[in-house]
Amino acid sequence: MTPEEFRRIGHQLVDWVADYRARLSRYPVMSPVEPGAIKAKLPASPPETPESFDAIFRDLDEIIVPGLSHWQSPRFFGYFPSNGMLSSVLGDYLSTGLGVLGLSWQSSPALSELEEVTTDWMRQMIGLSPAWSGVIQDTASTSTLVALICARERASSYSLAKGGLQGGGPPLIVYVSAQSHSSVEKAALLAGFGRSNVRAIPTDAAYGMRPDSLAEAVSSDAARGLAPCAVVATTGTTTTTAMDPVGAIADIAAAHKLWLHVDGAMAGSAMILPECRRFWDGIEGADSLVVNPHKWLGAAFDCSLYYVRDAEHLVRVMSTNPSYLQSSVDSRVKNLRDWGIPLGRRFRALKLWCLIREQGVVNLQARLRRDIENARWLEAQVKAAGGWRVLAPVPLQTLCVRHEPAGLDGDALDRHTLAWADRINRSGAAYLTPATLDGRWMVRVSIGSLLTEREHVAELWDVMRREAEKA
Amino acid sequence: MTPEEFRRIGHQLVDWVADYRARLSRYPVMSPVEPGAIKAKLPASPPETPESFDAIFRDLDEIIVPGLSHWQSPRFFGYFPSNGMLSSVLGDYLSTGLGVLGLSWQSSPALSELEEVTTDWMRQMIGLSPAWSGVIQDTASTSTLVALICARERASSYSLAKGGLQGGGPPLIVYVSAQSHSSVEKAALLAGFGRSNVRAIPTDAAYGMRPDSLAEAVSSDAARGLAPCAVVATTGTTTTTAMDPVGAIADIAAAHKLWLHVDGAMAGSAMILPECRRFWDGIEGADSLVVNPHKWLGAAFDCSLYYVRDAEHLVRVMSTNPSYLQSSVDSRVKNLRDWGIPLGRRFRALKLWCLIREQGVVNLQARLRRDIENARWLEAQVKAAGGWRVLAPVPLQTLCVRHEPAGLDGDALDRHTLAWADRINRSGAAYLTPATLDGRWMVRVSIGSLLTEREHVAELWDVMRREAEKA
Repeated sequence: MTPEEFRRIGHQLVDWVADYRARLSRYPVMSPVEPGAIKAKLPASPPETPESFDAIFRDLDEIIVPGLSHWQSPRFFGYFPSNGMLSSVLGDYLSTGLGVLGLSWQSSPALSELEEVTTDWMRQMIGLSPAWSGVIQDTASTSTLVALICARERASSYSLAKGGLQGGGPPLIVYVSAQSHSSVEKAALLAGFGRSNVRAIPTDAAYGMRPDSLAEAVSSDAARGLAPCAVVATTGTTTTTAMDPVGAIADIAAAHKLWLHVDGAMAGSAMILPECRRFWDGIEGADSLVVNPHKWLGAAFDCSLYYVRDAEHLVRVMSTNPSYLQSSVDSRVKNLRDWGIPLGRRFRALKLWCLIREQGVVNLQARLRRDIENARWLEAQVKAAGGWRVLAPVPLQTLCVRHEPAGLDGDALDRHTLAWADRINRSGAAYLTPATLDGRWMVRVSIGSLLTEREHVAELWDVMRREAEKA
Repeated sequence: MTPEEFRRIGHQLVDWVADYRARLSRYPVMSPVEPGAIKAKLPASPPETPESFDAIFRDLDEIIVPGLSHWQSPRFFGYFPSNGMLSSVLGDYLSTGLGVLGLSWQSSPALSELEEVTTDWMRQMIGLSPAWSGVIQDTASTSTLVALICARERASSYSLAKGGLQGGGPPLIVYVSAQSHSSVEKAALLAGFGRSNVRAIPTDAAYGMRPDSLAEAVSSDAARGLAPCAVVATTGTTTTTAMDPVGAIADIAAAHKLWLHVDGAMAGSAMILPECRRFWDGIEGADSLVVNPHKWLGAAFDCSLYYVRDAEHLVRVMSTNPSYLQSSVDSRVKNLRDWGIPLGRRFRALKLWCLIREQGVVNLQARLRRDIENARWLEAQVKAAGGWRVLAPVPLQTLCVRHEPAGLDGDALDRHTLAWADRINRSGAAYLTPATLDGRWMVRVSIGSLLTEREHVAELWDVMRREAEKA
């Protein structure tokens, strides 16, 4: 494809995307397709000869779009917001269009330096001290894996340069909360710790990690000759947005030389609001931190920020230095390949840079405050309604709710909950995520899509009442 | 930003990218900027209030583009080609514009199913049997890490569900070649094996792994009570494009129950040419394979294909199943979160789909054959020229060359080599990557940028002679 063809079809494509974004509220939020239906409409073998982009646009309209669940819809309340604000989308378009790669600083200096600058902008925006250095990873799953590998290597005095985890010595132990995201245990298992060396610490009534239980578990393991290694605290858990007490956990970590990793994937964005920073009081005592601007903040996926206090340790764990990647300036630059797992690196900073510049900090703050207000409004409605319960504190924008009709409990209540949520999802009117809390199903309402205004939340509440109460 | 603003600025941006791609040959290929120069031109703090996209375009022209090394340039011969063909760029634009996320099949069915279809198209294109299933990862570094973790878990009967690598038992050993990519050792270290449990097997005169040495090493380790676990063979090494003898290695792997992972990151794309498939004869004996269409083939970065023969094992190692990710169709679909490390997933299949459809298999094949022919032409020129040597076989599109003036050897020769390569890189006329081979510096010429025609290779050869011979 020549630049002139790209210009012509690119304009068509931008129009197509603009139309899609403008029409979002008309689509059923969750795709109604059956498993295998999309695949059945696509050729089983690749085309031998070229096809036109007209054919691609036709298939997009007829096959692909009907098979999507629309994350950018104003009626998307599932999982968490994955906002791809259009200014950030343009930043990503620049990145893909330029097609440059950051293997080393030398291989595209502006790529590395803009990443350094934008991650430092974000550091300032979320109120961290200058002791932190940031880098962009793909997702929090990866950032947390990197964190636990770094914890493993600090606790084992760089076992990777020797016998690894196979070198004997007391087993290293990782502490997580019973409400930690599934990626945290996954990271511990992938890093080789083993499930029997991962402790799930109980949570309190607000679903935050209990520091007394953590302290007990650490002492008990140490007394048994095991080696407490790392603790993962969460600022804004997935299920309820619970806030683990970072300060108290940091004190225990300091006393026992544990690596403290803080998972602020979702709620980290809220720290651009000074009034929310109390939720991670003590954060300066952590060793590493992940915040995903590709969730609530509006950066096009994928853009997960991983911050560390000891960048030299990170580099020592992650670095490789083959001859074909060396350059004469290596001693004077950051080579971001040594800050994570992949060698190749997109110019991801552009999408964060465009987002922050086009919005300004004030507009980003205003939107997050809008969403928090909308969540408070819905919380008040649910609490005032007979037969409904809000099951957990609502510090930010996620509500955990249940409709509890008189006489229904146990499995019958679970069936009722799953049924009304499923009816809403299948209707296409909104997308909600059921989840379990204290062993029973409830429904998460995650507010914060870019287009979600009070009217959409009010409509959702009408739909919820209609679908749950009619049964 | 509203859809209408996006439409207006998006058109501007497409024009900007089209102009950039059309002007590529005018830029100095390697950026001449000094470390810190870009950063110094950017504000140290984020803007409080919104800025216009005009300001962003101005900064792109004045600050960012001069700080880039231009990977899409016809005079880029560094590292390896990272071709982002414009049809694939448009596919990526669709992905970012749609802003949908694949957490589970349910969260965007078309995302999962198109990934299944396009990875199967590629399977057919590179001549693999239907026994293989594919998934898109970000990079080969990640794919290889996944492979070695899967190897670890098969050899240890799922130690992750027990004590991990800390559970005792004989150390698991990984075998790589002395010419393996740096990411292979890095993956072994990150997976917890430890450097003392990684064996670098010697290579033959053509830089391929010696199967007799591998067999010896495996037997010797087994005899010492260690547990041979995995071997990584490379089809197209980074330094010289050497081809490890996959068939012979597969036989040894089968005899000793080793996991065989094949790194075809670069040369895997060549397998769309039937005449190249002899380079990985025996590939059906491997357990896993990585091929990066984001290198030579033309898919916009990042698009690394990871193929496995036992998908059930992969899922068992990688799966998590928290309540908030469950859906009623789980038993009937592929949930791609269980096929790799990250939970979140871009709609990456679109860029591969658009590339293959817009090009057709025949045009992709024609371009790769063009590059191979260009490499053969240059090889002939270098071999015919006095004082020049081609240091390794040229199976595909990478040449390893050295100018060896009479009387120069040892460190003096190294200084000469690095000096002329550096003069070319600094001049902006072309980008070449020096690397070491047999302990001495040489220069890699990696041919295969989309825009590189015979004339560019001929110009490069003129520049090389001028810069090397003038000294």
